[in-house]
Amino acid sequence: MLLRRFSRKAACRMFSSSATQAGSEGNRAMSASAAAQASHMAAKPIDITAQPVLTMKNLGEDVPIPSVKSFNPPIRLLCGPGPGNAHPRVYSAMSLPQVGHLDPYFLEMMEDIKSLLRYSFQTNNSFTIPVSGTGSAAMEACVANMIEPGDVFLIGCNGYFGKRLVDMGKRYGAVPVTMDRPWGQVFTYEEIKEAIEKHKPKVLALVHAETSTGACQPFDGVGELCRKHGVLLIADCVTSISGVPLYLDKWGVDAAYAGTQKALSCPPGVAPLSFSDRAMDKLMNRKTDVANWYLDMRMVASYIGSNTGGARSYHHTAPISMCYALREALEIVREEGLENRWKKHRDAAEMFWSGLQEMGLEPLVAYEHRLPTLTTIKVPQGIDPKQVTNFVLHKYGIEIGNGLGELSGKVWRVGLMGVNATPLIAMTVLSAMKDALRQQGYKC
Amino acid sequence: MLLRRFSRKAACRMFSSSATQAGSEGNRAMSASAAAQASHMAAKPIDITAQPVLTMKNLGEDVPIPSVKSFNPPIRLLCGPGPGNAHPRVYSAMSLPQVGHLDPYFLEMMEDIKSLLRYSFQTNNSFTIPVSGTGSAAMEACVANMIEPGDVFLIGCNGYFGKRLVDMGKRYGAVPVTMDRPWGQVFTYEEIKEAIEKHKPKVLALVHAETSTGACQPFDGVGELCRKHGVLLIADCVTSISGVPLYLDKWGVDAAYAGTQKALSCPPGVAPLSFSDRAMDKLMNRKTDVANWYLDMRMVASYIGSNTGGARSYHHTAPISMCYALREALEIVREEGLENRWKKHRDAAEMFWSGLQEMGLEPLVAYEHRLPTLTTIKVPQGIDPKQVTNFVLHKYGIEIGNGLGELSGKVWRVGLMGVNATPLIAMTVLSAMKDALRQQGYKC
Repeated sequence: MLLRRFSRKAACRMFSSSATQAGSEGNRAMSASAAAQASHMAAKPIDITAQPVLTMKNLGEDVPIPSVKSFNPPIRLLCGPGPGNAHPRVYSAMSLPQVGHLDPYFLEMMEDIKSLLRYSFQTNNSFTIPVSGTGSAAMEACVANMIEPGDVFLIGCNGYFGKRLVDMGKRYGAVPVTMDRPWGQVFTYEEIKEAIEKHKPKVLALVHAETSTGACQPFDGVGELCRKHGVLLIADCVTSISGVPLYLDKWGVDAAYAGTQKALSCPPGVAPLSFSDRAMDKLMNRKTDVANWYLDMRMVASYIGSNTGGARSYHHTAPISMCYALREALEIVREEGLENRWKKHRDAAEMFWSGLQEMGLEPLVAYEHRLPTLTTIKVPQGIDPKQVTNFVLHKYGIEIGNGLGELSGKVWRVGLMGVNATPLIAMTVLSAMKDALRQQGYKC
Repeated sequence: MLLRRFSRKAACRMFSSSATQAGSEGNRAMSASAAAQASHMAAKPIDITAQPVLTMKNLGEDVPIPSVKSFNPPIRLLCGPGPGNAHPRVYSAMSLPQVGHLDPYFLEMMEDIKSLLRYSFQTNNSFTIPVSGTGSAAMEACVANMIEPGDVFLIGCNGYFGKRLVDMGKRYGAVPVTMDRPWGQVFTYEEIKEAIEKHKPKVLALVHAETSTGACQPFDGVGELCRKHGVLLIADCVTSISGVPLYLDKWGVDAAYAGTQKALSCPPGVAPLSFSDRAMDKLMNRKTDVANWYLDMRMVASYIGSNTGGARSYHHTAPISMCYALREALEIVREEGLENRWKKHRDAAEMFWSGLQEMGLEPLVAYEHRLPTLTTIKVPQGIDPKQVTNFVLHKYGIEIGNGLGELSGKVWRVGLMGVNATPLIAMTVLSAMKDALRQQGYKC
């Protein structure tokens, strides 16, 4: 151990010498008020050599210095359900020295992030912000703020994230009611209409992009239905934002949350959220407090949510570097243009799907409801799926995902998102999967 | 606008050509099961030219591309209550390409983070983890997991963060009872003993390092008291970890939370948390569910909390880059050694306090309870405090903090934390404050 340590005695010596210096250089000429303070201080001189109470003392180290491995993260091609690889420009932006979270520059930049998020969400919602946590935190923010105890909460359950909404809803006192569909399928307009008319919910949640199944839920007409019946509409856009056509305003979505680590190619750590005016009305007129402090969007609104340019009141400390990262990721979307970006994702997916077909592999989701960002692939009979994911990870450094929940052991999940939505990566993943399947005697 | 855009027709052409290619290269020789799948596919051929439903369609951009300012964050010396400047090595580590959050490397690195956190907290608590949010999220994690509805929750209120604990406690159904002290003072052992005997709380929370006042609460004997009376002890260590002697095990703290953006010199975005075995017992034997999903530490325990090396179950996606950053910040603490680090903070603070005395300025907190990491300075009569903070920000790019809550307008808050706990920075801040005060006619 080469660490240099100071003895307690040496520390005391150093404290004493500071005290002497302070004493000898004393107080100087100063204003009347300062002199008054100084005389107050003279009456109760600060004894810098005094022993601090036990708590302030250095009592040595009980828990010894641990030994750790070197920090040497391997290079991975991240083509699972997320995180995907982040854009190199995002890493550069993230590592610029941070400013304070109430710095005028940060507040100004937050306005840019908000307007860039509005573009990616295709909304004019004033309250469109990054939540200081990962996508799951933004999901809970929607539930915690939109649900009041006793609210009937209708949830489309056709995958893992629908089930999670049920769990979250219960924790906030909702009465959850589910529409159910086998994983990988989506709900029809008629099913949704019937369920709304039958259950008369206060809030409806649909998963636009089910990250566990790869299905894309159509929203056609749902917003109008919700308005007609006085229902607030929540949409999970974690795996759709900037990768798949997404129109909050056109579709009448009231509360939407998304992820940064998917099509936005930004590391996880902040998460986009947008509330419509109807959602803000409900929030501001709640009968009960939001049961969650960190995600209480009334308080967050007066911290970073306001557009008035007025004073911001401290709530928590925003994750500044992650906000830099998100700003850069959104700037890249702005430069590319959303339509080009959606097309890029679809082109890579179409190429990938063609390749799967050639290999005799079948996606779980019907073509017309298949997410371009994330494809679930049925595991052929006789193939051990985890052996495939382990093989491509260890031989090629490529991550593809295993099935989650009900689909565990039944599918793989391949994400071609953000920087990975390219012909190069589509071809690479297909080739690696081919090699892995051949190891198990699969002919392709 | 120089963005290149594809027409819808061009996109359709491209989809059609993929379809032709897939068709012509068809299915090859393959295993029996794959052949079965292929024939299944042949029966229902994928029509790649089919129009996806409305929701999948690109309907153009309603919300136009916004104009934003260039991304050019100014260089700041961050000597307010936090964030402080991050260590350059931390920025470098944070910008290394991320791995997946269930990657074997990430899980291995998480074990290193946990053991490095145990060292900085001076604890052997198995459940010692980074929470996927900022310090306030880790604070709420302690309250949400340790409080059951109806629990009497005794809180030491001598600053802003004590008051916040009351707010959080209420949201989780606690019956909050406060011990009160003027901001800047601390509680004596006798006061705490009396309050415990009188109120018989289930949980006691004390703020070790009050970031709003700069006071350091002694913990001597409190842990024993809590054990004797069956009380769980929560400690706020946001501004003390790695900057001030801190001994979770020696003091008998059951649940502690901390910040990364203070003495650890890591940007905000993850937050250290540690639960003792007593705390874990309460958590695992709760009568009610934890009312918060994202911060439910039973679920987080099976995601990143387990030390058994067994399978991890997905909960949320950890903020990977922030974990890289925290790992590096903790590695720097390991290399320096905690005792050297505590001494470094005290030396810088002693120098700063001597300089304040020379200028006729008085810290709010009595010497023996003053935090080395954060000093609150009384604003002399006749001085406009915000004019001082604005002056040093705009002339020198130095951030120092204004008072918070009750101390708003009455104090400045100066943090000399982590990389900023040096004689250089102490001198720099003193000189800048001197210049700012002289602008207002203060003689120093």
